[in-house]
Amino acid sequence: MEKTDVLVIGGSAAGIVAATTGKSFYPDKKFMVLRKEENVLVPCGIPYVFGTLANSEQNLVPDAGLKNAGVKLEIAEVTEIDQQNKIVKTADGKKIGFEKLVLSTGSTPAGVQWLPGSDLENVFSIPKNKTYLDQVKIKLEACNNIVVIGGGFIGVEIADELGKTGKNVTIVELMPHILSLAFDEELAVRAEEILEARGITIKAGQGVKEISGKDKVKGVLLNDNESIKADAVILATGYRPNTKLAEVSGIKTNDMNFIKVNEYMQTENPDIFAVGDCAEKYSFLTRTLKGVMLASTSCAEARIAGANLYKLSRVRSFGGTIAIFSTVIGDTAFGAAGVTEVIAKERGFEIVSGIFEGIDKHPGTLPDTKKQIVKLIASKKSGVMMGGEVIGGQSTGELINLIGFAIQNRMTVDAIMTAQIGTHPLLTAPPTAYPLIKAAEIIMKKQQEE
Amino acid sequence: MEKTDVLVIGGSAAGIVAATTGKSFYPDKKFMVLRKEENVLVPCGIPYVFGTLANSEQNLVPDAGLKNAGVKLEIAEVTEIDQQNKIVKTADGKKIGFEKLVLSTGSTPAGVQWLPGSDLENVFSIPKNKTYLDQVKIKLEACNNIVVIGGGFIGVEIADELGKTGKNVTIVELMPHILSLAFDEELAVRAEEILEARGITIKAGQGVKEISGKDKVKGVLLNDNESIKADAVILATGYRPNTKLAEVSGIKTNDMNFIKVNEYMQTENPDIFAVGDCAEKYSFLTRTLKGVMLASTSCAEARIAGANLYKLSRVRSFGGTIAIFSTVIGDTAFGAAGVTEVIAKERGFEIVSGIFEGIDKHPGTLPDTKKQIVKLIASKKSGVMMGGEVIGGQSTGELINLIGFAIQNRMTVDAIMTAQIGTHPLLTAPPTAYPLIKAAEIIMKKQQEE
Repeated sequence: MEKTDVLVIGGSAAGIVAATTGKSFYPDKKFMVLRKEENVLVPCGIPYVFGTLANSEQNLVPDAGLKNAGVKLEIAEVTEIDQQNKIVKTADGKKIGFEKLVLSTGSTPAGVQWLPGSDLENVFSIPKNKTYLDQVKIKLEACNNIVVIGGGFIGVEIADELGKTGKNVTIVELMPHILSLAFDEELAVRAEEILEARGITIKAGQGVKEISGKDKVKGVLLNDNESIKADAVILATGYRPNTKLAEVSGIKTNDMNFIKVNEYMQTENPDIFAVGDCAEKYSFLTRTLKGVMLASTSCAEARIAGANLYKLSRVRSFGGTIAIFSTVIGDTAFGAAGVTEVIAKERGFEIVSGIFEGIDKHPGTLPDTKKQIVKLIASKKSGVMMGGEVIGGQSTGELINLIGFAIQNRMTVDAIMTAQIGTHPLLTAPPTAYPLIKAAEIIMKKQQEE
Repeated sequence: MEKTDVLVIGGSAAGIVAATTGKSFYPDKKFMVLRKEENVLVPCGIPYVFGTLANSEQNLVPDAGLKNAGVKLEIAEVTEIDQQNKIVKTADGKKIGFEKLVLSTGSTPAGVQWLPGSDLENVFSIPKNKTYLDQVKIKLEACNNIVVIGGGFIGVEIADELGKTGKNVTIVELMPHILSLAFDEELAVRAEEILEARGITIKAGQGVKEISGKDKVKGVLLNDNESIKADAVILATGYRPNTKLAEVSGIKTNDMNFIKVNEYMQTENPDIFAVGDCAEKYSFLTRTLKGVMLASTSCAEARIAGANLYKLSRVRSFGGTIAIFSTVIGDTAFGAAGVTEVIAKERGFEIVSGIFEGIDKHPGTLPDTKKQIVKLIASKKSGVMMGGEVIGGQSTGELINLIGFAIQNRMTVDAIMTAQIGTHPLLTAPPTAYPLIKAAEIIMKKQQEE
């Protein structure tokens, strides 16, 4: 029987990072990744396969990273984990022994079995599966009218990419606005305006009654009985964790069906870790269970698990997801971290928010200067940072990470307001009106007026 | 006699921010800015007046910011401060009373009076003076061979901008590499390679013996007796604080001739504050006196002074400069924060560094993907972050700010390695190989091997 020291099941972002970080911390140990799929797609790159990228080949995670790190990679599906004897069994009858195990089995589209017509031809979901998605791409080429159900990040990105190829695209979203888990209304509205200006139709605050058609999709019927013509429907209605393997192997899952883990990313069995979309998550701020699935969260968990495999030498723990998102619509970028104002209030937090609109270069006469809008949400009395939302240009991705760092470090708006921020004409907002700082200042002014 | 509550002397970045922040915190007080110059140039934008921007009109700080904030602006030069009676006198004989005073008198080119030929025609410095710089721009149009003395940020930026207009430009730098206060050798070399590929000649490790010519510049003679042909010379040899007004008014300056201030930005007179280029600075990390002049530092100081004017209600203090720089050469951006490896070692710190080279989008097949290199410097035993250097694309400006936040929060490499970082294909490096995190991981591995 083959034996390895550390076995990682699943080879997408979380699995790769758990294995490579682990190998880096424990170079003398043998590491092996078992992966079901022949190829792994860059998960966040999937929407771009439908427009910006020529094909899914351009969106593959290279295997070289694992090999260069000295991690063995095998393609196999694990069907059972024998916790007692520390052995896994694969679908083709192989057995592999391990000392430490990491579960990074990922997630699968949640599906909408309850929705009439969801089994019609040309109703597609977006699994992280190259073969399936290659088929979807080919089939969509013959379709002109496409309805995307779900206005979260995946739905919005796919809609925008399909719009780029000249399709007539409609997003249907149940909540009053798209992207509403990440953005408060005043920023979500900007995203809607940009999408609409790019020719995308948005039906927000609208449920779907049925997908109509005989064999093939003909249209989508909304709750208010409006009917939208459609040659294809894309379900962007979220994902569920892949936990079947854990369940059949006696590894505990939580009420939301994620694998239960502690802050060190260990399951109840201290030699078995779980990371990424399949692993239980709490919100860093609200401390409620979360179903959020993000590469940022997954990779942080995976690095912690990798470092903790053989010894908990530095109390490296995962304090809960801050849910740092970013995306691009047209040439405008959007980022969010922490909680929105709406969610904070729902959970009973007394908060205060500030919003500032500036520019992302300076002077504004420089070519390619874009608007930059920053909204911050902070605890009312303590001023501790709880959330941030950004609209801007190319620098938005790192600016939202900066806000994420502020939240992780429990910085107060006071500390933000007096922080040192490097600025450069071609790279950032002006030092005199840096939107992050100005938003903090607005919050402090509000605090003072109380 | 006119009377105001808060009087700010100087109307560039630090003065504007001190006044507007102050007005925001103390809306019932009357604020006034006295400014010597008719127009204020965006200081960091000055190099771009010589290439990217059509003229200096495009690089003016709008006065609207002050007016909208309710701050009165007057053009006048203050010649004396009567501390006893809380009155300033202006060059045109006016007297203005104040309760609180902020000195933000800025800086002036240091000059090279010791250098033979420095008074020849077509030897220019780069003061923050629109009229002078407009003249320089016109005169440079007739020059083909230009020597820039000094390879710091201003020298490099001006050289690159002049190169864009087709001039034959040489940078002469005394240190072995350009930008060496901000970057260690391995990164400074990249900047040199890019400049050279763009047609700029670099003479590093070279002192200037004299600027030659009769009335007008003919050339520059280096210490090794090499002679470089030149129609014009630009002195980018640093700035000295404008502290004459403070000195004649009995306000203390330090050994480097900056106005002495405490961490609340107060001079010895608690009603008089000083901020920006004219104010004393310590290094956040090495605790040595610094002559660094940066908008990032200035504006942080100004915000602190503005908030502290009437009450030190929250112990808002300036902990020393982190010296966050960023710049762009061609289409490659450079950023630095904290101390370099060389400087840390010189000051006796036991440090460990890590460098990682990745990409700034993912997958790398996406259009406009650039290399991203991150070097981190940390305290050897504690892992506390001491410095960072970045080369990359458009996101470099905020990425170096992220590193700045990590330094300000005294984050350890451990905390960086396990931090949550949002990623997006079009905006950031991949989550599996995010250079900031990987550089931290390399440091931790080195720590472990000790």
